[in-house]
Amino acid sequence: MNYKIALIPGDGIGPEVVAETVKVLEKVSQKYGHTFEYTEVLAGGCAIDATGACLPQETIDICKASDAVLLGAVGGWQWDTLPGDQRPERALLGLRKELGLFANLRPALLFDELADACPLKPEIVEGGLDLVVVRELTGGIYFGEKGFKDTDLGPAAYDVEQYAEEEVRRIAVVAFDMAMKRNKKVTSVDKANVLESSRLWRRVVAEVAKDYPEVALDNLYIDNATMQMVRYPKQFDVIVTSNIFGDILSDEASMITGSIGMLPSASLAKGNFGMYEPVHGSAPDIAKQNKANPMATILSGAMMLRYTFGLSEEAEAIEAAVKQILAEGYRTPDIYTDGKKAIGTKEAGDLIAAAI
Amino acid sequence: MNYKIALIPGDGIGPEVVAETVKVLEKVSQKYGHTFEYTEVLAGGCAIDATGACLPQETIDICKASDAVLLGAVGGWQWDTLPGDQRPERALLGLRKELGLFANLRPALLFDELADACPLKPEIVEGGLDLVVVRELTGGIYFGEKGFKDTDLGPAAYDVEQYAEEEVRRIAVVAFDMAMKRNKKVTSVDKANVLESSRLWRRVVAEVAKDYPEVALDNLYIDNATMQMVRYPKQFDVIVTSNIFGDILSDEASMITGSIGMLPSASLAKGNFGMYEPVHGSAPDIAKQNKANPMATILSGAMMLRYTFGLSEEAEAIEAAVKQILAEGYRTPDIYTDGKKAIGTKEAGDLIAAAI
Ligand SMILES: CC(C)[C@H](C(=O)O)[C@@H](O)C(=O)O
Ligand SMILES: CC(C)[C@H](C(=O)O)[C@@H](O)C(=O)O
Repeated sequence: MNYKIALIPGDGIGPEVVAETVKVLEKVSQKYGHTFEYTEVLAGGCAIDATGACLPQETIDICKASDAVLLGAVGGWQWDTLPGDQRPERALLGLRKELGLFANLRPALLFDELADACPLKPEIVEGGLDLVVVRELTGGIYFGEKGFKDTDLGPAAYDVEQYAEEEVRRIAVVAFDMAMKRNKKVTSVDKANVLESSRLWRRVVAEVAKDYPEVALDNLYIDNATMQMVRYPKQFDVIVTSNIFGDILSDEASMITGSIGMLPSASLAKGNFGMYEPVHGSAPDIAKQNKANPMATILSGAMMLRYTFGLSEEAEAIEAAVKQILAEGYRTPDIYTDGKKAIGTKEAGDLIAAAI
Repeated sequence: MNYKIALIPGDGIGPEVVAETVKVLEKVSQKYGHTFEYTEVLAGGCAIDATGACLPQETIDICKASDAVLLGAVGGWQWDTLPGDQRPERALLGLRKELGLFANLRPALLFDELADACPLKPEIVEGGLDLVVVRELTGGIYFGEKGFKDTDLGPAAYDVEQYAEEEVRRIAVVAFDMAMKRNKKVTSVDKANVLESSRLWRRVVAEVAKDYPEVALDNLYIDNATMQMVRYPKQFDVIVTSNIFGDILSDEASMITGSIGMLPSASLAKGNFGMYEPVHGSAPDIAKQNKANPMATILSGAMMLRYTFGLSEEAEAIEAAVKQILAEGYRTPDIYTDGKKAIGTKEAGDLIAAAI
């Protein structure tokens, strides 16, 4: 089969980690007889420098004409003095909206070999940690009306958090479908004791739950969820939540694994289209030094094979290869500990490709 | 001096922990020659049962006629079937708004004696943990317009996050004043890469910072702040943030101390008026069993003496008494570990009063 992939290397370490992922995908293509066709496009800071806009129309068009998008990272200190609404990161919001990527899946997995890096006490994460945050990605306060107005208290700025039943339903369906393939537990996170939009959220999630009698549904307030994530994260299987709460909770979940350089993500549209990217950022301080850990992006590539192309065996081969090189003791600088074998970005890509 | 205190025992363990706090305050009054005059009023579930409303007008009136309010906790499973907007917890929102309590101070302190209960690895919290979250409490999405509307995607619900410059300024001033008395560092938390209201927030905080040249100001996005709280919480001194982000971040901060039964809070209005309450909830499962830990409420009483009555010496006496009984090995069930001396709610109150 022939698959079209739009590549967005982006800024900082983005180009390096994407290059290693392509290396690994090429090994998969040889071994399993697929053809991956890549088109490289600009987004983020490099796009601002080249075209003046963080998300050129050409990029959107090429992404839309592809089967999937693989993104490295965007942003960096060079563009930090731009006003907030013109930063490279706006490219992400644009891509999500333009490509209809309403479902963001962020697995938080503790790799046995890296358990020592976890900031929580060993007894809290004993036996591992394996949860997925399903974050709504094209609605809520990110895309609601925003602006300025005069109030009793003087000049004010505002942003509208808003959810339509339909938006909640489709993300809830993604979460329950995922739970059916996992441990059959969904935790919906909201602030229904304060927000009208959360009360709608909770009601619609309960409706969807009726179609999944085997799945246990729990509701938690966001403040409580943030606490539970530290106190007893193993209670979670699939967490489903709004755009802003998902932003917060998925980052907290990544951090408690202690290995943010290892975590992939998928942002899915209706159908099979998806954009795949590591959870970590562009890390400009270590760019172009062969220091970046490409494993999160390589694992994002595996998610692409699984979710967009339906190639589970190939996805598992990549995941197994990553685990194998960890088991063999290879470590990039971000996960290095005494006595292990230090490697760089390129060596990591080579070793993983070779292990497939 | 004569001080008027409105007491809101509330639900669950509320009445028990408030009773022990009164015991301690009475000891302070004897020793230092003050008169505390208490008026007990209803709010929360008990108010719903007695009057049909979670926050009777009489309660508001009596609170307004007092110098300070001491609250136990509100809420419980008996009222959990009520619609979200009629729950006992709504009383809190009503009190905050009616009493103009715009500044919520939540210190997150790791008590040396209880360091073992911290869910983070010892090396992360070595040397203790001492930060304060200053949360805006009468604005933002909690009190913005909310409702329903029809959208392109069908029926929707919405809530408006909104901040006037003046609201941001007054909470920033509280945070910077507090930093001047502590380690001279303020971290302002927002989501300025997405929200217009956050960009206003960041701009006004920067303006206020100019009046405090000795204080270092840092800005963090909420998603990053939630991660930093787990990764390296000792970087924080004073955190200032919006109502909803403060709700999330202050709960996370409490949880990483591992001793939520120990943490007090203050909600301050302009002038010296304030409402004081423990961070923990009403814990109906252990109510009326002499099992609740009254120390968070007793320490809230100490904050009342310090912030509303200006009685620092007396406040310190209470804080020292709590530390003393911990050092002597006394532990309520929530903080009990092998080899320590088990005590109940009443004994804790007696011991602390005796230690003053
Ligand atoms: C860069 C920013 C706009 C973005 C978000 O808030 O969604 C990021 O934090 C993320 O989670 O992908
Ligand atoms: C009970 C609830 C409305 C309240 C809030 O969200 O403010 C609580 O979580 C708190 O932090 O005091």
